Amino acid sequence: MKHLLSTRDLTRDEAIGILDVAEDMADVQSREVRKLPTLRGRTVVNLFFEDSTRTRISFEAAAKRLSADVINFSAKGSSVSKGESLKDTAQTLAAIGADAVVIRHPASGAPQVLAQSNWIEAGIINAGDGTHEHPTQGLLDAFTIRRRLHGTASRGRSLDGVRVTIVGDILHSRVARSNVWLLTSLGAQVHLVAPATLLPVGIANWPVTVGYDFDEAIDAGTDVVMMLRIQAERMMSGGFFPNAREYSKRWGLDDARVDRLHAATMVMHPGPMNRGLEISSRAADSPRSTVLEQVANGVSVRMAVLYLVLSGERGELS
Amino acid sequence: MKHLLSTRDLTRDEAIGILDVAEDMADVQSREVRKLPTLRGRTVVNLFFEDSTRTRISFEAAAKRLSADVINFSAKGSSVSKGESLKDTAQTLAAIGADAVVIRHPASGAPQVLAQSNWIEAGIINAGDGTHEHPTQGLLDAFTIRRRLHGTASRGRSLDGVRVTIVGDILHSRVARSNVWLLTSLGAQVHLVAPATLLPVGIANWPVTVGYDFDEAIDAGTDVVMMLRIQAERMMSGGFFPNAREYSKRWGLDDARVDRLHAATMVMHPGPMNRGLEISSRAADSPRSTVLEQVANGVSVRMAVLYLVLSGERGELS
Amino acid sequence: MKHLLSTRDLTRDEAIGILDVAEDMADVQSREVRKLPTLRGRTVVNLFFEDSTRTRISFEAAAKRLSADVINFSAKGSSVSKGESLKDTAQTLAAIGADAVVIRHPASGAPQVLAQSNWIEAGIINAGDGTHEHPTQGLLDAFTIRRRLHGTASRGRSLDGVRVTIVGDILHSRVARSNVWLLTSLGAQVHLVAPATLLPVGIANWPVTVGYDFDEAIDAGTDVVMMLRIQAERMMSGGFFPNAREYSKRWGLDDARVDRLHAATMVMHPGPMNRGLEISSRAADSPRSTVLEQVANGVSVRMAVLYLVLSGERGELS
Repeated sequence: MKHLLSTRDLTRDEAIGILDVAEDMADVQSREVRKLPTLRGRTVVNLFFEDSTRTRISFEAAAKRLSADVINFSAKGSSVSKGESLKDTAQTLAAIGADAVVIRHPASGAPQVLAQSNWIEAGIINAGDGTHEHPTQGLLDAFTIRRRLHGTASRGRSLDGVRVTIVGDILHSRVARSNVWLLTSLGAQVHLVAPATLLPVGIANWPVTVGYDFDEAIDAGTDVVMMLRIQAERMMSGGFFPNAREYSKRWGLDDARVDRLHAATMVMHPGPMNRGLEISSRAADSPRSTVLEQVANGVSVRMAVLYLVLSGERGELS
Repeated sequence: MKHLLSTRDLTRDEAIGILDVAEDMADVQSREVRKLPTLRGRTVVNLFFEDSTRTRISFEAAAKRLSADVINFSAKGSSVSKGESLKDTAQTLAAIGADAVVIRHPASGAPQVLAQSNWIEAGIINAGDGTHEHPTQGLLDAFTIRRRLHGTASRGRSLDGVRVTIVGDILHSRVARSNVWLLTSLGAQVHLVAPATLLPVGIANWPVTVGYDFDEAIDAGTDVVMMLRIQAERMMSGGFFPNAREYSKRWGLDDARVDRLHAATMVMHPGPMNRGLEISSRAADSPRSTVLEQVANGVSVRMAVLYLVLSGERGELS
Repeated sequence: MKHLLSTRDLTRDEAIGILDVAEDMADVQSREVRKLPTLRGRTVVNLFFEDSTRTRISFEAAAKRLSADVINFSAKGSSVSKGESLKDTAQTLAAIGADAVVIRHPASGAPQVLAQSNWIEAGIINAGDGTHEHPTQGLLDAFTIRRRLHGTASRGRSLDGVRVTIVGDILHSRVARSNVWLLTSLGAQVHLVAPATLLPVGIANWPVTVGYDFDEAIDAGTDVVMMLRIQAERMMSGGFFPNAREYSKRWGLDDARVDRLHAATMVMHPGPMNRGLEISSRAADSPRSTVLEQVANGVSVRMAVLYLVLSGERGELS
């Protein structure tokens, strides 16, 4: 795998392959010494044009557990935060010998620009670009669902027939997009629930079903409820966005709704959660919640992605 | 040792045990290659809700010399700086596999909250919480006193009978508190000198003597004078706080006072110093000053604490 | 080599010696595992009183490829950014066991102050001090010129007879100064081109020739054109500084000028470039441009400097 730019590019077999390597990495994580020498001498640069401490430390932990050297480059507010100099920044990172660049950027498509350029040879890993994609989030969500369903017998399996309901601000969510492409490639049936104003134009072409009523979706039955994070600053701006109280009442996973879920239904959230807004504390902390597994699996999945991008192929892990 | 939350919890024997491991670490520091493989594969997160470059780099150096992976997480100003999300932050750190969390927090008790929660399994090391405690500062101060008195023959020794005078803003000082509990457990006699307005309510229950006159304390004799840092911003705020000039004149260690100290009396300061305010340059730079030894010993003490928290028991150091 | 404070101090043989070690480091960079165990257990502190992500990550990558532990200490805006506490900061770094301090400081001479003090034993490496020097930039520029001219047969060679034209704001440029001293020591003929208002007093004593007309310098022939970065904020301030349009027209390397250069003439720039101001994109991206080689060579040169400062002498590299 040369880059990881989106989940839309991934075939079903490629996606299963990545999840299987992530299983190997999860095994490493459970050892006494949770470290592999695999990427010794490789340099991973975390190039963050937006703040995201959680994603950055997850990639940093993943890279360090593979013995890579990690250099953090927070470009927010610096001279390089202007779009026009992405080329110069990339060439600089190439020249100092970056083997992989993990990039978070406010502009949709920035990682693709890097990967398609001849500015840099390094593997490019998209850690979130605008409203476009956040592919490692999709992969860790798929990994989490598969592990909940099949445990240590997950290797090689798809998500055929699994029903996933994604709820919230689909319009602005790169997490939703990465999940839609990936989960459907893996065979899941994805149903989206959102206020009509928060659905993107063109959603008719997505391989999903769409509804506006959360309760109806719950009654129809689902194996997974995935709540999206609400960006409070968007909500305050008014316009086509419902206010917090209305949003919470109609599209939040409150205690009443969580109690009506089937016993086996998982509750997912990419974090950080707005408790009391899109998700209640009871939902977030219940045994059906996978929130913490998602974070833990994030390190395994990112180890797998770094490994595949930097080692080229799946080999033997020592 | 599962956590290090305060020095008040430590028995005399436990405290001596930590100081003895710190002696081993000081030996490592004097080698050609100042590094042990002991914590390879372990992840230490520096979770700082307040800026403190000095404390952070001391812990970072300590962890790296034990071969741990270090992740810096500056939470100041970020969304996690709000108290209500300490739980989510802790769970996130647990999920990415933090083995120890070094926490600096403006709220007294925050490290205890973490340690008593079931949010995270990691060892919690208090790097300063509000006005409560800063236990590694107390330990490095005790270590420094013991080494000055006994040199390389320090192992196993207490501070029985050592007279320590702590001077300054006791009311707001976590350094003072950590020293009071620890030094008295180790057998020292602690005398506090402060403006009456800068003494905490309830000091009558502390195992110390209290005075208001620095010169009187000097004349009475003391083995150690420990000056506390004055927070200039507190002083500017007026109210019950004396102004800088008056403070310096009555409670500062100026040249006149330092000249009246017994030749063997040590001068300590946790740094960073306000030269000319609570301490004169002559005092700070004199041979009796332990300021630099305190910083150097800080790395050894923090190596010992990380080692004990992460390895569980005192074993053989390779 | 105890410190690297300036290139003015370096003899011709010392300079050639550093460039030769950098050749060894460049060889290491071309290996599968680009890492040497040489500085394991050593601690390098990047002490930056000014932001400079590029220089910081170059030193960080260099130190990590030599297996040193790296601690980043951004002093900008912190309490230590006041000049008067440089002593306390240095002593603190000494006490935590810094073996080398890479310092960037807005005040000319700050690294010299550190090196000549008895505050700290560590090797001091100047990473840019005010308008004084930026010696590793000079070294990487010399290395880049030598490699372009002699390829892998560069070892042991000087720059005798090489003609270098440096163009721009000489007055404020530490890069220009470090290059002037170093390149002339290595035997190059240096010609400076600048607006009269941007030449320093005392330039008559520099071992260079000076002109005001860029086209004249091009017509006279040169092996290297080195463009300096324009600080836009200086230009906006008016006064003795020409405006951007006039500057670009008279002293910029635009397309017309680059086309008139001899085919073998190199174009250099320390980066980051203001494309369209002091250099056109065609010039920056042409095969004659060494901009990316300069960045790549920067890591090799900084590895060499760290190695020489920390290992004392040139030994066998494993």
